[in-house]
Amino acid sequence: MTVTTEAIVERLRAGDRRVAARVISLIEDGDPATGPLLAEVFRHTGRARVIGVTGPPGAGKSTLVEWLVRAWRERDRSVGVLAVDPSSPFTGGAILGDRIRMASLTHDRGVFIRSMAARGHLGGIAEATPAAIRVLDAMGMDIVLVETVGVGQSEVAIAAAADCTVLVTMPGGGDAVQTMKAGVMEIGDVFVVNKSDREGAVRVKREIGVMLRLQERTPRPPVLLTRADTGEGIADVVAAIDEHLAAAGASGALQERRLRHLKRETLDLIGRQARRQALAALDEDTVARLTDALGARRLDPATVAAHALAAITEGAGNGTVRN
Amino acid sequence: MTVTTEAIVERLRAGDRRVAARVISLIEDGDPATGPLLAEVFRHTGRARVIGVTGPPGAGKSTLVEWLVRAWRERDRSVGVLAVDPSSPFTGGAILGDRIRMASLTHDRGVFIRSMAARGHLGGIAEATPAAIRVLDAMGMDIVLVETVGVGQSEVAIAAAADCTVLVTMPGGGDAVQTMKAGVMEIGDVFVVNKSDREGAVRVKREIGVMLRLQERTPRPPVLLTRADTGEGIADVVAAIDEHLAAAGASGALQERRLRHLKRETLDLIGRQARRQALAALDEDTVARLTDALGARRLDPATVAAHALAAITEGAGNGTVRN
Repeated sequence: MTVTTEAIVERLRAGDRRVAARVISLIEDGDPATGPLLAEVFRHTGRARVIGVTGPPGAGKSTLVEWLVRAWRERDRSVGVLAVDPSSPFTGGAILGDRIRMASLTHDRGVFIRSMAARGHLGGIAEATPAAIRVLDAMGMDIVLVETVGVGQSEVAIAAAADCTVLVTMPGGGDAVQTMKAGVMEIGDVFVVNKSDREGAVRVKREIGVMLRLQERTPRPPVLLTRADTGEGIADVVAAIDEHLAAAGASGALQERRLRHLKRETLDLIGRQARRQALAALDEDTVARLTDALGARRLDPATVAAHALAAITEGAGNGTVRN
Repeated sequence: MTVTTEAIVERLRAGDRRVAARVISLIEDGDPATGPLLAEVFRHTGRARVIGVTGPPGAGKSTLVEWLVRAWRERDRSVGVLAVDPSSPFTGGAILGDRIRMASLTHDRGVFIRSMAARGHLGGIAEATPAAIRVLDAMGMDIVLVETVGVGQSEVAIAAAADCTVLVTMPGGGDAVQTMKAGVMEIGDVFVVNKSDREGAVRVKREIGVMLRLQERTPRPPVLLTRADTGEGIADVVAAIDEHLAAAGASGALQERRLRHLKRETLDLIGRQARRQALAALDEDTVARLTDALGARRLDPATVAAHALAAITEGAGNGTVRN
């Protein structure tokens, strides 16, 4: 279906929103038939700047994203937004509310907003999001904003795979900084302390500053105060993002970073694909036998994994992969 | 080295703490030579009850763990503790402090405390922790407590792989419950609202209760109030854990759960092992060529991953895996 693939990509590149939405749905479904399509889409990417926005629940990320969209629209740049939902159904309501509020932006042809959900295939959202970002890139968006809740490791990883990662936190009992400490400080390019009218905002800003000095990164990421309810400080965030992107682009750091992310994504795909192949290559009897051995603690997981991998490679070598 | 493996496992089963510590260090290093040893250790596991304790930073998990250890020691049960550190060096200080405080327990022969760190091999802590748990199980510990910071997905996954998972939170601006909402509510068997003297504790307890009712799980997990500074409520937590384990053991749910975890661990190992094999099977020229194609956006990650996987299976089929 080469003709169809080319036709779809052509319509996508012309900015067809319905095509973009449909392709992202196929990606969410984990439909293997999208492979050739995504391979073609990939050739037309790399122009958009991808901004990750992450942080703990309740930090005000969605409202901040909304302000950023408006700020870039004023500067006449088109903006795609991907909101990555955690899989729990309990967050559905709140995120839907945000989406409805942001619907005021959807009459603007320069804005494309999409909520992402993992629909239960292996790898899920971590696998689907980079492909969805590329769809927005190929359709001509100047900026792609990816909003994730910085709770799960994979959500943080998604934001960290951006060209510029904005870490959002807020004042509140020191927990904000403690959460940031636990392995996510390293991924931020721009730090935002939102709800700056609350008590403790300046202290949180100072604490993040101290931790960043300990990291000795060059250039040191800025720490900015914002009020997402009034829009105060948003212009500074936009300026900081632009500055980061300009500096990284000029030094070659942006190209390096993108290649590093592409390589990691490739490695992750190899791992997930091998799992699927192993499952497909093992016949039911073998699975039952290995499961029994695990349950009876005769064979440990590493030994069973080695058996399964041998089954894939043998199957492929003989040209007789059993499905 | 079959003799050595058997000798080591024999000493481990006799409760030799130095052997246990050394084996866990080998696991942390990701030494492939531990494979046969861990396969043998696995045969002598399944007796210990594994309790996961997880929650946001600052919830008081370590102090709670300390109380639990003392409570079980009073009931004459031996206890192993694995404290899983996030990889960030910034948390090192605080966790070391906890360890020093818990050192008062280390003169007790019925207690074995160990802090786990990932030393940079692929898979890291997620791969090392189940193996380390088995070492404590094989050395005869009645209870193995695994404490993780519920921030990263892999840390949460580690706790979730226990026989009973205790989710710890605390009052604080509603964030505690929001954090819990985002995909981790499902993993808790016993819920603890620590720092119950703080304002809002009863409200947090009630909110968690409401969410649990929405989940319609049977039996519904208990939500308990504790004060880790005074030990108030600890006896209830111990009773709730014992009750959960007894009920799960009697119904067969415990066996099912363990088998499910072993299968998932096996699948994860297949994925990680395949990544390693792919890297080993690809010669430098191929890696350089594929990396160029990625960087120039000629081939997308999925296509490159397919090439790499084909290289593994071909290499294995020909009996000529290139290292």
